[in-house]
Amino acid sequence: MSRKPEIPRKSIYRFSLYLRCLQKLHRENVETVSSETLAKTAKVNAAQLRRDFTYLGHSGRRGFGYNVIELKDRIDSLMGTNQLTPIVLVGVGNLGAALLSYQGFKEMGFEIAAAFDIDCERHKTRQGDVAVQPIEIMREFIAARGIKVAILAVPAESAQAVAAQLALCGIRGILNFSPVLLEVPDDVLAHNVNVAVELQNLAYFIRE
Amino acid sequence: MSRKPEIPRKSIYRFSLYLRCLQKLHRENVETVSSETLAKTAKVNAAQLRRDFTYLGHSGRRGFGYNVIELKDRIDSLMGTNQLTPIVLVGVGNLGAALLSYQGFKEMGFEIAAAFDIDCERHKTRQGDVAVQPIEIMREFIAARGIKVAILAVPAESAQAVAAQLALCGIRGILNFSPVLLEVPDDVLAHNVNVAVELQNLAYFIRE
Repeated sequence: MSRKPEIPRKSIYRFSLYLRCLQKLHRENVETVSSETLAKTAKVNAAQLRRDFTYLGHSGRRGFGYNVIELKDRIDSLMGTNQLTPIVLVGVGNLGAALLSYQGFKEMGFEIAAAFDIDCERHKTRQGDVAVQPIEIMREFIAARGIKVAILAVPAESAQAVAAQLALCGIRGILNFSPVLLEVPDDVLAHNVNVAVELQNLAYFIRE
Repeated sequence: MSRKPEIPRKSIYRFSLYLRCLQKLHRENVETVSSETLAKTAKVNAAQLRRDFTYLGHSGRRGFGYNVIELKDRIDSLMGTNQLTPIVLVGVGNLGAALLSYQGFKEMGFEIAAAFDIDCERHKTRQGDVAVQPIEIMREFIAARGIKVAILAVPAESAQAVAAQLALCGIRGILNFSPVLLEVPDDVLAHNVNVAVELQNLAYFIRE
């Protein structure tokens, strides 16, 4: 495993962007790409991109650009996305259902292994390829499969309790869509995706 | 209007977080809060918070903490969230429906004025308080109402075309949920919310 813990968080974020662009180029049968073009596609600064790529031990050949497949493989290996990581989804309301039908997970290295919901009405329906299961069996499932990452899409009022449960099950990373700032143990990492915060940020910068 | 263009983007992002915490404190009838407590709730560094607050021209009184309502009002005024900003939503699939039923917009200063979809089956149903309208009338609606911010939740393959249309309608900010990096004119700001990128980032940092 080529994890280099000293890589800054922002570089890791940009590696995800590069990966996305490289996948697109690969689908379009593009074989080589210059750092300038890749930087432009990913909307980052070219110098920044070249600095990030020093973490790959990959300098490209001046005037030849990068081989798309080779670069994609190197980043996949850095990011651990060269194999599918199983994740669970908790909460299958509108948002959870939207996430279940989202097509982009596999390409980015993730597979929803199971979805859980407290509402037994939702257990009857499968959403996409994944069966929705009762939350009572969540703990056993996560432990048995050794799953480390969960997406939390439950209502605000139950988010904290479910996050605590997930931490007890052995989950180490939570992508939180509930509009709540979670309190989690030190060995659990919670990222928040808050739509209203993103909107505020956007709106501020376009104000005249 | 108190816009201070020199405020760093990250501070603006944190102001959204502070606002969310202050709203919660206000709901819980808390009247004053120390910078340490507020920083801890928002999960930011207390020194950072105090630095951010210099943009408010607000220093609090040592030992007394901040008045919750007063601080909330000041940040609302800075962020322009002291009045509701109308926005439109384009694309009412699973994700769009989830966003329409999301309860957190009003509290954060936004109101979905209309939702648009290409599929006329979806026009029959109202989603929450908002009627879903044919995309053909979008341009006229946005221009008539002077709307500047749109949420884009259409499928990947139509995202770029719809974004171009929105720019022509006078939209200046797009919150993009489609898994595509948008090309927009220089006077339009597009923020991407990409679930798979967030997951990759999270997964990287919990890898052993």
